[in-house]
Amino acid sequence: MKKEIKLQVIAVNFPFIKISLGRDVLELFIFASSIQIMAQKPSIPKGTRDFSPLEVQRRQYIMNIIKRHFELYGFMPIETPSFENSDTLMGKYGEEGDRLIFKILNSGEYLKKADANLLETGKENQLTSQISEKALRYDLTVPFARYVVQNQNDITFPFKRFQMQNVWRADRPQKGRFREFTQCDADVVGSDSLLQEVELIQLYDAVFTDLKLTGCTIKINNRKVLAGIAEVMDAEDKLIDFTVALDKLDKIGKDKVQEEMRSKGIDQEAIDVLDPVFSLSGSYADKIASMKDLLKESQIGLQGIEELEFINSFIDDTALKSAVLDLDITLARGLNYYTGCIFEVAAPDGVEMGSIGGGGRYDDLTGIFGLKNVSGVGISFGLDRIYLVIEQLGLFPDSVRAGVEVLFINFGVTEARYCAGLLSRFRESGIKTELYPDSAKMKKQMSYADRNEIPYVILAGEDEIASGKLNLKNMRTGEQSLLTVQEVIERLR
Amino acid sequence: MKKEIKLQVIAVNFPFIKISLGRDVLELFIFASSIQIMAQKPSIPKGTRDFSPLEVQRRQYIMNIIKRHFELYGFMPIETPSFENSDTLMGKYGEEGDRLIFKILNSGEYLKKADANLLETGKENQLTSQISEKALRYDLTVPFARYVVQNQNDITFPFKRFQMQNVWRADRPQKGRFREFTQCDADVVGSDSLLQEVELIQLYDAVFTDLKLTGCTIKINNRKVLAGIAEVMDAEDKLIDFTVALDKLDKIGKDKVQEEMRSKGIDQEAIDVLDPVFSLSGSYADKIASMKDLLKESQIGLQGIEELEFINSFIDDTALKSAVLDLDITLARGLNYYTGCIFEVAAPDGVEMGSIGGGGRYDDLTGIFGLKNVSGVGISFGLDRIYLVIEQLGLFPDSVRAGVEVLFINFGVTEARYCAGLLSRFRESGIKTELYPDSAKMKKQMSYADRNEIPYVILAGEDEIASGKLNLKNMRTGEQSLLTVQEVIERLR
Repeated sequence: MKKEIKLQVIAVNFPFIKISLGRDVLELFIFASSIQIMAQKPSIPKGTRDFSPLEVQRRQYIMNIIKRHFELYGFMPIETPSFENSDTLMGKYGEEGDRLIFKILNSGEYLKKADANLLETGKENQLTSQISEKALRYDLTVPFARYVVQNQNDITFPFKRFQMQNVWRADRPQKGRFREFTQCDADVVGSDSLLQEVELIQLYDAVFTDLKLTGCTIKINNRKVLAGIAEVMDAEDKLIDFTVALDKLDKIGKDKVQEEMRSKGIDQEAIDVLDPVFSLSGSYADKIASMKDLLKESQIGLQGIEELEFINSFIDDTALKSAVLDLDITLARGLNYYTGCIFEVAAPDGVEMGSIGGGGRYDDLTGIFGLKNVSGVGISFGLDRIYLVIEQLGLFPDSVRAGVEVLFINFGVTEARYCAGLLSRFRESGIKTELYPDSAKMKKQMSYADRNEIPYVILAGEDEIASGKLNLKNMRTGEQSLLTVQEVIERLR
Repeated sequence: MKKEIKLQVIAVNFPFIKISLGRDVLELFIFASSIQIMAQKPSIPKGTRDFSPLEVQRRQYIMNIIKRHFELYGFMPIETPSFENSDTLMGKYGEEGDRLIFKILNSGEYLKKADANLLETGKENQLTSQISEKALRYDLTVPFARYVVQNQNDITFPFKRFQMQNVWRADRPQKGRFREFTQCDADVVGSDSLLQEVELIQLYDAVFTDLKLTGCTIKINNRKVLAGIAEVMDAEDKLIDFTVALDKLDKIGKDKVQEEMRSKGIDQEAIDVLDPVFSLSGSYADKIASMKDLLKESQIGLQGIEELEFINSFIDDTALKSAVLDLDITLARGLNYYTGCIFEVAAPDGVEMGSIGGGGRYDDLTGIFGLKNVSGVGISFGLDRIYLVIEQLGLFPDSVRAGVEVLFINFGVTEARYCAGLLSRFRESGIKTELYPDSAKMKKQMSYADRNEIPYVILAGEDEIASGKLNLKNMRTGEQSLLTVQEVIERLR
């Protein structure tokens, strides 16, 4: 019968260790080999992910398609550092955004600069700026604005850039929301032409069509229309409250939206003015007609409507391949910097997922960094959500998983030496080739090929080497063929 | 004549502002429109970089070549999160490494968990673990070890993975050393076959040859040989001091190395034993012969020599394309986890740059995370330094800069509408195509094409549209041709 003994380690000074056992204290001499430091059970921070080979390949499949279309549309790649000076990022995403930015602790004696009072009173907000000067990128747009201002003398405007990099947010993780995720952005700055909006809508359509993600809805709205509605409601001072409430229409319904507006101090008369917006339906053109009527007294509202009309006339001419452009007057999008058209892409019907892309026009993003009067417009692809949608719909092509094509079986040093000489020839012919590293049992080597889904193995034992040929085995059919090296290379290529 | 007045702002409470002017204090009412908050002069943290389109394209050119060879050699991609739990990283890179790891401040009320005493006494080291639980990746090897242990049940061993991601170090920036840089690693775990070392040497050679970086030296040594030397010197307890000193031989010379050894308490008799190492010369085989003699009494030393001999016999058989394999007994490499062969790649002669790659065998890297007896070996490519070397030698192909191929000139809305319909056709044919967004002056549009090095522009004005043709202008020669759409597409493709 085993008895459990509770003991406590008091001190460790190898090879001696002092323990207390009940009321006794014992000093023990430990053989080095019997000590094993408790291994950590490894894990990763919540909201982050490891990507397996298949996942990396699938992500690259998506990114390559997005990148190819970015380039076809004339965008050029840039990259910015993962962390920026805190003052570049802070205050650009609202109070909530500031909270969600990951801050990096200063190196070395970071407390030296800290105000002792703040430490004592536990005021994190004020202390943070004293012990942290850098922060992880929160999106790609603000760093891009910073880039444009900093490099304005080297840039030819209009400047069309794309950027595919990770961003980090200390958000509560949930389905399709991670603390590290990848954004793929395309923006144009230095042109206020609405043709940019047209091109970006076509770009969305081209990418999603190529990804076989047909039936996406590209929702469009215009901040000027929202401002116009606020104007005719005589509630300009409540613009944000009103758009936040309106944005929830498809989630909570008309009654609850009206209730929220009332609770924010918007009076019933104003809400009644809004009534046509709640019952808006029909085609893009129908909605435009209704809105024109509603906004007839608002100059800014009509300007927004005109922009939406112009864009739609171009899209009509050059029909979209598989996506649908839908005017959604309730679309608001959170970020403060948008001033004109705004976009959001919804996955095909039947897939529950937040927006898989979004963007819009901002008239003065670079102003915060000192470069005024530069209009910009851009869109973003949410790689991680697009991945989940494609996975859910089973739309990843089988060809995406492209591993080793042929494995040389290892029969021993002599044979391996012979094979090693051939490996380069195979690889120079573009064939992904491996030699099993040990002369392990045949069964083990074959099982390695199986598990890694390697379609062919080559058996080059004593006999084959003598005959100057290779035995090529098709792992799917089991068929074996005795071929010259050149014949094998040609068959595999 | 203007007079400069010095005033001092005492308090700001918009729209009122209190200033002192000489001995007077004035309270002013400020019109909102006259206030302009001073724009930040944007900058990026030291040791980090923005990458322009050309730089991104050049980096991708290098990465694509590395990636292609990784795949040809049978490695599969994985990716790990940018930040890990601190305890995954801390203590793995020595004390210096711990200091250089970027720590991420906890979100929210991070001071709540902090010990008030530590705050008062300013003890950063102990406080850090209380206010920071995550840290940025310092290299790719430790996260890889963590990945292997965490996913050991899903992995088929030997597991060959590659990983191309950024790492971050709070190091003092200097030429070729950045605080954020990209590593490209290939490792095999679960096989102690020396064929892996052979393959990795060939992989280095294949990549650098493909990058036209001929004449690189792949230095090789073996930690067992270093242990053997320490043994025959009777200085096993001074192994680290002795290798650190020896590693500096080509920088500071024999005398200074000996001096450093003496200062570390290694006696003259032991240093004399080392003499053949200082005068080692000749071919790989010559050096092996000398070392065999020196290490004849050391079992571990001879084992190391045997490994180096075996590897060289394979490399002899399958000659390297352009690199040279050189046995460098002074090579030590800092990281503690290496136990067998170690590698380091030096740029071609005449280029001053630290090593552009390195790696080695580690017998128990995953042990720290609880998975024992898994041998691994890997190499790393230092992308940023390779970039600098290729740039210095002028070896980037011109084709790397691949921007827009054709620009449609914008003559106005009607013409733009006509062109917009053609853009998709061009893009579907794989031609990178742009329409100038505004009907700006011809000169401005042409200058845009020039500055962006766009080789062709298309002029489709009223006449061309009427004739159903396009006017294609070659920007280099100035030649213009009136062609059908299909003819233009064929010429550009």
